[in-house]
Amino acid sequence: MPDDDLQHRSQDILARLAAVIESRKIAHGGDPTKSYVARLLHQGPDAFLKKIGEEATEVVMAAKDADHGADKAKIICEVADLWFHCMVALAHYGLTPDQVLAELQRRAGSSGIEEKALRKLLGRGSADQARESP
Amino acid sequence: MPDDDLQHRSQDILARLAAVIESRKIAHGGDPTKSYVARLLHQGPDAFLKKIGEEATEVVMAAKDADHGADKAKIICEVADLWFHCMVALAHYGLTPDQVLAELQRRAGSSGIEEKALRKLLGRGSADQARESP
Amino acid sequence: MPDDDLQHRSQDILARLAAVIESRKIAHGGDPTKSYVARLLHQGPDAFLKKIGEEATEVVMAAKDADHGADKAKIICEVADLWFHCMVALAHYGLTPDQVLAELQRRAGSSGIEEKALRKLLGRGSADQARESP
Amino acid sequence: MPDDDLQHRSQDILARLAAVIESRKIAHGGDPTKSYVARLLHQGPDAFLKKIGEEATEVVMAAKDADHGADKAKIICEVADLWFHCMVALAHYGLTPDQVLAELQRRAGSSGIEEKALRKLLGRGSADQARESP
Repeated sequence: MPDDDLQHRSQDILARLAAVIESRKIAHGGDPTKSYVARLLHQGPDAFLKKIGEEATEVVMAAKDADHGADKAKIICEVADLWFHCMVALAHYGLTPDQVLAELQRRAGSSGIEEKALRKLLGRGSADQARESP
Repeated sequence: MPDDDLQHRSQDILARLAAVIESRKIAHGGDPTKSYVARLLHQGPDAFLKKIGEEATEVVMAAKDADHGADKAKIICEVADLWFHCMVALAHYGLTPDQVLAELQRRAGSSGIEEKALRKLLGRGSADQARESP
Repeated sequence: MPDDDLQHRSQDILARLAAVIESRKIAHGGDPTKSYVARLLHQGPDAFLKKIGEEATEVVMAAKDADHGADKAKIICEVADLWFHCMVALAHYGLTPDQVLAELQRRAGSSGIEEKALRKLLGRGSADQARESP
Repeated sequence: MPDDDLQHRSQDILARLAAVIESRKIAHGGDPTKSYVARLLHQGPDAFLKKIGEEATEVVMAAKDADHGADKAKIICEVADLWFHCMVALAHYGLTPDQVLAELQRRAGSSGIEEKALRKLLGRGSADQARESP
């Protein structure tokens, strides 16, 4: 668990990373021939959305490898890759990681964490019951 | 961009959410019959890893819908869902979101953001060149 | 390698499975309270598309487990699950597995198999070159 | 619906494609510097498994675009890409598309199609019930 200084530094990361991504937009001077992020943003949604699918798969592979003895540090890198590409998508749609954090906050209370999952579940409760009578 | 209080509050979210997830582990008193997170952790890696694949797909669908006029707020919820299930996975492997933030920090410098992508690219440079000579 | 009878029987499978899926459409009398496929089709694209993301992840997990000694038969089941949900999607969009097979046929020639991958590659050739000059 | 000749021709595709993939294995003379498939097989599971995640995402994107008016032919190409990379994985693990077809056949009967989904459901029946009592 990090001390307060580290926490503060860490928090700054998401906002600072979002600012760097923002600066890579073509409209803000980003150069697709020099910057990976500028290129993703320039190529449009399909380019970074398929990376989200690919990076999610890489998280799963790193986790499976860890289950079988591989270094868990790989999981951290792959989750960072996944979150990073999510942040590129957020930037494209004019959204921020702070909005994601605010949404997570709503679920961080002792009961709130289950709320969304339960809401989803209750919403498909009747369908699930139907499933059991083929 | 949030003010300092919000930033601080937001940062706390990831740490607080990680603490709540931690408390849902069976070893810490989590009850799989009452808590969605406890159930995921109790079912083991396959249960939450396949959710990562599913939630990544939901991010992509929400983004595609937004491309065609749907509410962008859906993207925020789906990214929150994805990050949330990543945090369940991190907890299972004894890892923390702070470690992910630290990894992102390494890429948040003006040049660092491209570093990882470039490293990956250069690593497969020869393969890519081979690809062009069928 | 199956004998001719088995080959013929096997081929029939995709067409027959497509016909069964077709019969599950509400317009053709499918009952969402009794049939899983009818329910997926009734719920609409998001329901079966997210299953494609989930099942692809399950293929990856089964493969990773096989890498570490688990039964490879699990891979077959998960690929079948993935292809099955793809066929539900094809049915929804008025497409058939025969069209997918025809597309695969175009790639099955000794050189054709590389054709699509190469076309894709050449299409992004300039971007890849750009990537190497950060 | 194809006539018998087309059916026969189509069926041959999966077996023929599997044979071409098999011939791309290094042990069978495949050259990673010339063949995309040989390169994937040479790079090992992570290379083609992450493609399965990426291609599944591309199927979802093509479907979403079709929902909003784009050409449905794109879906066929993306499903072909996904099945193709699944076949590379099958080859790596010494499995064949015939085994996948046999598994699908088990589900192609009027009731069999629901069987697997139901089995899965019943298997997690108690967990689902638990879910409803938070």
